[in-house]
Amino acid sequence: MSDAKVIEPKVIGPRSGAAFLLGAGEILTVTDPQGCQVADLLAFAAHDVREVISNGRTFDYEETISLTTGNRLWSNRSRVLLEIVEDTVGRHDFLLTPCSEATFRHFYPDKPVHRGCFGNLAAALSPYGIEEDAIPTAFNLFMNVPVEQDTGRISVIPPTSVAGDLIRLRAAEDCVIGLTACSAYASNGGSFKPIHYAIQPAPAPV
Amino acid sequence: MSDAKVIEPKVIGPRSGAAFLLGAGEILTVTDPQGCQVADLLAFAAHDVREVISNGRTFDYEETISLTTGNRLWSNRSRVLLEIVEDTVGRHDFLLTPCSEATFRHFYPDKPVHRGCFGNLAAALSPYGIEEDAIPTAFNLFMNVPVEQDTGRISVIPPTSVAGDLIRLRAAEDCVIGLTACSAYASNGGSFKPIHYAIQPAPAPV
Repeated sequence: MSDAKVIEPKVIGPRSGAAFLLGAGEILTVTDPQGCQVADLLAFAAHDVREVISNGRTFDYEETISLTTGNRLWSNRSRVLLEIVEDTVGRHDFLLTPCSEATFRHFYPDKPVHRGCFGNLAAALSPYGIEEDAIPTAFNLFMNVPVEQDTGRISVIPPTSVAGDLIRLRAAEDCVIGLTACSAYASNGGSFKPIHYAIQPAPAPV
Repeated sequence: MSDAKVIEPKVIGPRSGAAFLLGAGEILTVTDPQGCQVADLLAFAAHDVREVISNGRTFDYEETISLTTGNRLWSNRSRVLLEIVEDTVGRHDFLLTPCSEATFRHFYPDKPVHRGCFGNLAAALSPYGIEEDAIPTAFNLFMNVPVEQDTGRISVIPPTSVAGDLIRLRAAEDCVIGLTACSAYASNGGSFKPIHYAIQPAPAPV
């Protein structure tokens, strides 16, 4: 890799979000620069944004709710949009929807309301023609949501990620990506931190 | 209840589906008449079908993935659409998407392809202006999908429901309901059976 260009990461500030194109074969690296932060990720097929990652399809085809290196993220049309090619954490969530004004009112009635990852994703994705109602359950990077086997009860506890931990996902085709630095108290142990990301070009055809 | 009208149940034949309106306050009873059958259920807000039940919002607000009497089904707009008011089984799934042509090809490559619950829901919901891509993860009544706590692995095993078992859901507002008698082999132990449903009117205002 000595001839690889150094890719300067982009910064998603605390409690904000971004959207961008990820071309087929490109690899998205999402880094938790300080540790213990969550990033909600969405992927839509760029050629038709009605196609979007689906937790239900992904759980079905991957036969697990715990996704890590080698697992793929499937769309509502039963096609692969992203593949996880590296993961230094191994603990992510695909059960819960992005925090929003409504979830702030519900879970944190004594704290100021924030538009949350949902509002940040909606704002960032709007230029791509994606409406609020089309935002499904996100793949929540580094989010730590244990499920009790006997009762089904879930809890949201601080991520196990430490500074510099990362996950890498390769696009199976051209995607519109939505990505946040999470705004909720519980998901990151009450500390709002940035998220870094970088895009590595697809290898040149042989 | 001696003056209550006997409500004749409607029958959803094996491997088929239906869609209908459920008014605010009405109670939908879904019965497994022979036992060990699954029914995929969807609910959309009748006034704007872009609002639909969301497993992620429901897991978040109910703080469990195991839903039974007293739990509510929340929409992508953080509002309650249905409440479970009775449940003789206590074992349902909200993790997996409806079986479809693609899932038949994936999981049963040696068996004939069927349009599955997805195709049945899409056909039944089409007159209500609901497109295929708007079909999210369904609430799969009687479906038995254990999750291993340590690994996150899931499996689809036969339902625990016996003949006559039922679940009752009250509409918090006018809904479009989609409902199937499941078409997949694994979800019902390889036996395709009908599903019955009935709608009980809302109580008269006092």
